[in-house]
Amino acid sequence: MNILIIHGPNLNMLGKREPDIYGNTTLSDINNLIEIVANSLNVKTEYFQSNSEGEIVTKIQNSLGKIDGIVINPAAYTHTSVAIRDAILSTDIPTVEVHISNIYKREKFRQNSYVSGVSLGVISGFGTYSYILGLKAITNHIKSKK
Amino acid sequence: MNILIIHGPNLNMLGKREPDIYGNTTLSDINNLIEIVANSLNVKTEYFQSNSEGEIVTKIQNSLGKIDGIVINPAAYTHTSVAIRDAILSTDIPTVEVHISNIYKREKFRQNSYVSGVSLGVISGFGTYSYILGLKAITNHIKSKK
Amino acid sequence: MNILIIHGPNLNMLGKREPDIYGNTTLSDINNLIEIVANSLNVKTEYFQSNSEGEIVTKIQNSLGKIDGIVINPAAYTHTSVAIRDAILSTDIPTVEVHISNIYKREKFRQNSYVSGVSLGVISGFGTYSYILGLKAITNHIKSKK
Amino acid sequence: MNILIIHGPNLNMLGKREPDIYGNTTLSDINNLIEIVANSLNVKTEYFQSNSEGEIVTKIQNSLGKIDGIVINPAAYTHTSVAIRDAILSTDIPTVEVHISNIYKREKFRQNSYVSGVSLGVISGFGTYSYILGLKAITNHIKSKK
Amino acid sequence: MNILIIHGPNLNMLGKREPDIYGNTTLSDINNLIEIVANSLNVKTEYFQSNSEGEIVTKIQNSLGKIDGIVINPAAYTHTSVAIRDAILSTDIPTVEVHISNIYKREKFRQNSYVSGVSLGVISGFGTYSYILGLKAITNHIKSKK
Amino acid sequence: MNILIIHGPNLNMLGKREPDIYGNTTLSDINNLIEIVANSLNVKTEYFQSNSEGEIVTKIQNSLGKIDGIVINPAAYTHTSVAIRDAILSTDIPTVEVHISNIYKREKFRQNSYVSGVSLGVISGFGTYSYILGLKAITNHIKSKK
Amino acid sequence: MNILIIHGPNLNMLGKREPDIYGNTTLSDINNLIEIVANSLNVKTEYFQSNSEGEIVTKIQNSLGKIDGIVINPAAYTHTSVAIRDAILSTDIPTVEVHISNIYKREKFRQNSYVSGVSLGVISGFGTYSYILGLKAITNHIKSKK
Amino acid sequence: MNILIIHGPNLNMLGKREPDIYGNTTLSDINNLIEIVANSLNVKTEYFQSNSEGEIVTKIQNSLGKIDGIVINPAAYTHTSVAIRDAILSTDIPTVEVHISNIYKREKFRQNSYVSGVSLGVISGFGTYSYILGLKAITNHIKSKK
Amino acid sequence: MNILIIHGPNLNMLGKREPDIYGNTTLSDINNLIEIVANSLNVKTEYFQSNSEGEIVTKIQNSLGKIDGIVINPAAYTHTSVAIRDAILSTDIPTVEVHISNIYKREKFRQNSYVSGVSLGVISGFGTYSYILGLKAITNHIKSKK
Amino acid sequence: MNILIIHGPNLNMLGKREPDIYGNTTLSDINNLIEIVANSLNVKTEYFQSNSEGEIVTKIQNSLGKIDGIVINPAAYTHTSVAIRDAILSTDIPTVEVHISNIYKREKFRQNSYVSGVSLGVISGFGTYSYILGLKAITNHIKSKK
Amino acid sequence: MNILIIHGPNLNMLGKREPDIYGNTTLSDINNLIEIVANSLNVKTEYFQSNSEGEIVTKIQNSLGKIDGIVINPAAYTHTSVAIRDAILSTDIPTVEVHISNIYKREKFRQNSYVSGVSLGVISGFGTYSYILGLKAITNHIKSKK
Amino acid sequence: MNILIIHGPNLNMLGKREPDIYGNTTLSDINNLIEIVANSLNVKTEYFQSNSEGEIVTKIQNSLGKIDGIVINPAAYTHTSVAIRDAILSTDIPTVEVHISNIYKREKFRQNSYVSGVSLGVISGFGTYSYILGLKAITNHIKSKK
Repeated sequence: MNILIIHGPNLNMLGKREPDIYGNTTLSDINNLIEIVANSLNVKTEYFQSNSEGEIVTKIQNSLGKIDGIVINPAAYTHTSVAIRDAILSTDIPTVEVHISNIYKREKFRQNSYVSGVSLGVISGFGTYSYILGLKAITNHIKSKK
Repeated sequence: MNILIIHGPNLNMLGKREPDIYGNTTLSDINNLIEIVANSLNVKTEYFQSNSEGEIVTKIQNSLGKIDGIVINPAAYTHTSVAIRDAILSTDIPTVEVHISNIYKREKFRQNSYVSGVSLGVISGFGTYSYILGLKAITNHIKSKK
Repeated sequence: MNILIIHGPNLNMLGKREPDIYGNTTLSDINNLIEIVANSLNVKTEYFQSNSEGEIVTKIQNSLGKIDGIVINPAAYTHTSVAIRDAILSTDIPTVEVHISNIYKREKFRQNSYVSGVSLGVISGFGTYSYILGLKAITNHIKSKK
Repeated sequence: MNILIIHGPNLNMLGKREPDIYGNTTLSDINNLIEIVANSLNVKTEYFQSNSEGEIVTKIQNSLGKIDGIVINPAAYTHTSVAIRDAILSTDIPTVEVHISNIYKREKFRQNSYVSGVSLGVISGFGTYSYILGLKAITNHIKSKK
Repeated sequence: MNILIIHGPNLNMLGKREPDIYGNTTLSDINNLIEIVANSLNVKTEYFQSNSEGEIVTKIQNSLGKIDGIVINPAAYTHTSVAIRDAILSTDIPTVEVHISNIYKREKFRQNSYVSGVSLGVISGFGTYSYILGLKAITNHIKSKK
Repeated sequence: MNILIIHGPNLNMLGKREPDIYGNTTLSDINNLIEIVANSLNVKTEYFQSNSEGEIVTKIQNSLGKIDGIVINPAAYTHTSVAIRDAILSTDIPTVEVHISNIYKREKFRQNSYVSGVSLGVISGFGTYSYILGLKAITNHIKSKK
Repeated sequence: MNILIIHGPNLNMLGKREPDIYGNTTLSDINNLIEIVANSLNVKTEYFQSNSEGEIVTKIQNSLGKIDGIVINPAAYTHTSVAIRDAILSTDIPTVEVHISNIYKREKFRQNSYVSGVSLGVISGFGTYSYILGLKAITNHIKSKK
Repeated sequence: MNILIIHGPNLNMLGKREPDIYGNTTLSDINNLIEIVANSLNVKTEYFQSNSEGEIVTKIQNSLGKIDGIVINPAAYTHTSVAIRDAILSTDIPTVEVHISNIYKREKFRQNSYVSGVSLGVISGFGTYSYILGLKAITNHIKSKK
Repeated sequence: MNILIIHGPNLNMLGKREPDIYGNTTLSDINNLIEIVANSLNVKTEYFQSNSEGEIVTKIQNSLGKIDGIVINPAAYTHTSVAIRDAILSTDIPTVEVHISNIYKREKFRQNSYVSGVSLGVISGFGTYSYILGLKAITNHIKSKK
Repeated sequence: MNILIIHGPNLNMLGKREPDIYGNTTLSDINNLIEIVANSLNVKTEYFQSNSEGEIVTKIQNSLGKIDGIVINPAAYTHTSVAIRDAILSTDIPTVEVHISNIYKREKFRQNSYVSGVSLGVISGFGTYSYILGLKAITNHIKSKK
Repeated sequence: MNILIIHGPNLNMLGKREPDIYGNTTLSDINNLIEIVANSLNVKTEYFQSNSEGEIVTKIQNSLGKIDGIVINPAAYTHTSVAIRDAILSTDIPTVEVHISNIYKREKFRQNSYVSGVSLGVISGFGTYSYILGLKAITNHIKSKK
Repeated sequence: MNILIIHGPNLNMLGKREPDIYGNTTLSDINNLIEIVANSLNVKTEYFQSNSEGEIVTKIQNSLGKIDGIVINPAAYTHTSVAIRDAILSTDIPTVEVHISNIYKREKFRQNSYVSGVSLGVISGFGTYSYILGLKAITNHIKSKK
């Protein structure tokens, strides 16, 4: 089972950014953490971060036929990108949307997600553990479909 | 560690209700499933279902001092109950909001949650597995705070 | 054929309340009137009134397998209860929504109904005769399905 | 007692149109059905269908002094005609608004009715039986006023 | 003169809840404080708290003929309960709405009150002293009507 | 100078309709009154009433080259007819919009006018005298342009 | 018969201001024009201009018992002054609202008037002739009430 | 193949109306132009213009069984007619909506179309050439379905 | 303890204005009534009424260092004055907002208050007694802070 | 005559994506189809697809002086890109907006286009034939301007 | 070159008011600071502060012919005064709008400005330095026009 | 002191684009102008333009530790980019938002800025001089913080 982990814009700044909301963990730390859990689940993972909406769209498209599921934290593009929504639609790869902070507690414009409507489900607010829950959710889903 | 699992209105009908959305699993099946995972996590769980907004409020109040965390699927009251929001606020017990279906894919009125703003985080759309993820999320949170 | 008549909150106050809108007839008078018509239609009726949203939800759930159709005047809960909507959805019992007054002539907040979207149809504005029309509508519907 | 039955635009296409919503019954069938019930109630009925908003307005005006009550299915004009609303106001003939489908389950723009605010009451969602209920409602109302 | 004091959901948690907003005073302390003022005004008071919307509705209904005025802090139900509004309407007992905090400084959803439209008046923001002002207001109103 | 007076739907019912708002004067009385004032102003007037939006559109079109100004009371079509707006635009005949009642005191939907945006000006609320003021306004305007 | 003509803020700049909308006529010219018509109607007029909301309120209050009718062009205060609305309400002097330009063709915020709801009627868009029409309207109204 | 070309209200004024938006071409010119292209496509065309919403509805209804496709420029009724929408629905004849001007550049109320939701597609903004494109679109569609 | 009582625009008309809403009491009567209660509370009071927003702003500013608390009925300026809000903010004098009528029962535009967000609390609907309650509220607040 | 065809994000997935909406045709097939028609019209075409908003902006900028017209299907960026709108504005190259599906039948957020306001016109809903119509529209427009 | 500096309501309280937002600088300090910069730019400045909307309107009117440019901080009237907007329009003196705080970070009602639409430009958020920037902006603008 | 000047999408087209709004100055001219002023202020500047949202995000991220302040004209991304907002948040570099035109006079969608909420302040409407003002503002801010 191959899972693609996508980190949206500015997540490469983790550990440097708004520590009262996100803590000190870097993106590299998160990926290492995911890797450990993935190993325990017998799942192969690939990691991708980009600040570019278009690159994320292309990455999703290129996953077609290679990837069984996606865990995506679309970050700022959650609220503004119809293109990422359409990329998920066009590949039809099962996708879980995750957020580090609880977006429903933040600014009003962060409470609309173009991605939720095409995701399997949404996990929001558990810090870096949101990714671990997302990995478990997508793995469980794929297994249950086999 | 003591965790309270709260099931909101109509969840006692699971297995009989809208099978294309919720499947055949009954509430009892779900509780059994949670129990197994809870045991593996060394967590004690208590289960509560009610169709009454007031009873859910009272249950949350009565948990003060006895319960370390709550996993709640407020169901219909997600969208209409300020009283449950206030009950969580008044006890200040860490709470995870879960939903069986992906509420962001359903009617517009199901996309507002009074509970999200006072929850640690939200998990929506993974069927009965949403509860398992919720249990892991609350357990992980409480452990990390110790 | 078994029909359940549900009266929502404050309808037990009929005859005492806002006489310019609702007249002097009591709830007991209405039930007697329905009974007479039900007898003439060879239909058995059961009557239920509650001020509690949760009790109405539970009553609807308990009708599963015993009741062929519901005539409900959700009163105030028409406009605020997703839980009653979900109860009707979960049992899938054919339901007719009735109102004594024409709710479309009253305050704006009374013009949204969470129940209409899951009802067979709506009858509003004919005084206590709304119940009689509702009984005929549900009876006619059930017969036509046989 | 003289009752005018008004059918709004496109209702002359019944039986040919959107059968999954409206069935195969033609407008002529409906009028015959109403006639039978009207006879049993000792009520004289007149039937009128038009695709023209202006003609419906004029028909209502011309009923002044000849007609005791109106059963109207304004169809598309329900949602767009202030002129029909004003015609009912100007004649002050008791009017019942009926709809074949449950308009509260359809597109959002079909959930506003300019007619409801000047009607005695509204009946929506019972197929052609909505007309029969409407006829009974208006008859009952007129009798109760005598 | 008999006055009923109604405390809505979660007010039984006072003293334990959000101390920066509500302070340490318990509900029992508040009732004692009201009692002292009531005695000085020669008014008999009765106290009622419930987390259940339906029970508050029923309590208001049962006050008919026994109670001259109501002081109600509907708490969370202020913003969501049409049923309590209708209960006040149905009994027509003069009612004063009070709030401990200034609801107009809080979340936007707390700035709509279904109760204000059927109350004599509203008192909001004076801590537990809001109840004392409410008691004086209702007493003064009833005396002025005699 | 030739002036066309257009009366919209239901104005032929004047004298029979909502007397508390419009009084007992009939449309014929109004036209006679306008005639007297028109004579004193040396203006020729033509009168037209229709319940049909399309007929009003056609009447305006046919005025091109024959009529110097229009005084229109669009009645219900004020709020719903883009077609009449476009007819005035297409002929470019100076037009004054008049209303018998003060539409800004009535239902909210009566406070939007599609006609105002293409009118010289608006006169609302002076009973039948609104027509006289409208006639004076259009006459004054045309004279000032010569 | 005594009529007060009130000119709101910036109308003292007429003739200097936005000539494409208002022309070259000064406020003094307008008052002279009104005077001539007033004389022909046997009406005494008083003129008042202020840039201050409060002074306009006070002027209206001071008219009580001295003035039979008001013609007011509230200018910018049309859209922002509840105080002027309340002043008209508090004196109950019949008032006609006039505007030089057609406010329904201008910015959206100019299409709301707090004054219209308490005016006899509204006249908008006829240049300085709007005042003459307003004077005739108020005179006609007062005469018809005698 | 038989195609019906429907021109909505005021389009008979083309050539006389708002030349900066629509140019000097008359409706007759447009029909001649369409005829030439239709001949080259081996398509029979019929032309219909009306200012009446009801007549357009009736024309669409009468096309059932005689016409293979409709090219309609609903003009002002685009934005206000649910009846035309329902007529297209009731006959289920493939329909292309065309506009001479780009309606998305005009007033906001012209940017809602009741017809688009039941049309095959929309062509807007190409002057009279919009009709030619519409004819090609409907012809291509019908051929591809055979 | 020095308390400033501020009466907003048109309150000087009390006793002459809308008697069904406000009664016959004059502003002078109210001030006398307040004076009596103030004496009994050992509080010095100052009274100020103005129709001018700017004067009220200046009065509040000038109170800095002289006044311990303000009871303000901003009347019409409640709904339109950010300047009064800012004046209260800038002096930081504890302020109680009072209204004679229950503003939550009146026009929708009267249900927004710019003042509530910077007030200690709000008292609305108790006639002239609202001022007495306001005086008690501000006095109690200041005493509790000492 | 040189025409640039721009395909927005995810259109490179055509033939793999949502076949019930878009069919099996690939982007390459579409370009070949356009090429054939372009040849018959004596027009040179260039093709460009990108998932990146910025690249599409740059492509449009680089067309200045080389390209006579653009046919663009902005896909997801239709609804979210002001930058593409500004690129079209900044080059002032005539542009036709095309869509494969009828966007007015899809999700509400797909019914706003930032591009329509700066396009010559819009063609939506004719499958791949929308491009052919777009090519004809832009060609016809450019020829008519020469 | 003569520049008028206008300070709106409550700015005379600077140094006493909300120090966390505005600091300790008084209005007199600000004027001195502006004076120094004005001298270095060879510009004469005049200073005006008022709490009264009407006085600010009159001041702007009186500047006609004497003043080359205005720097205005409308403070609270930014959000509520159409009269100040109209005063700027009526004199057509180039005007720069400045704010001490960044109004786009504050309450939502502070994010609408009636003045911006008639200003040369807006400067917001740089503390007292906003005035210096405003002075430079207006000076630069006037010089570039000579 | 190092200042980064960021120009958003399409600003590289300056001098070629909408000359009535932006004039003939090219981006290179602007940068030269800024350079001169920067030299006089003893500030080092770096210049960056991109049409890509992602590249602007990355540029801001890469400035961390190298740049003391940013002057950004986000152009079209002002209104659509949460990612740029988050980039500014994540680096916490003081940022001034500038616009060449007065965005508050343009289309409604240009009046929302995602950047303003995280900027020190906003300068809009002074042509290329907006950049000079922005440079002075950021320089002044940084100096005042030392």
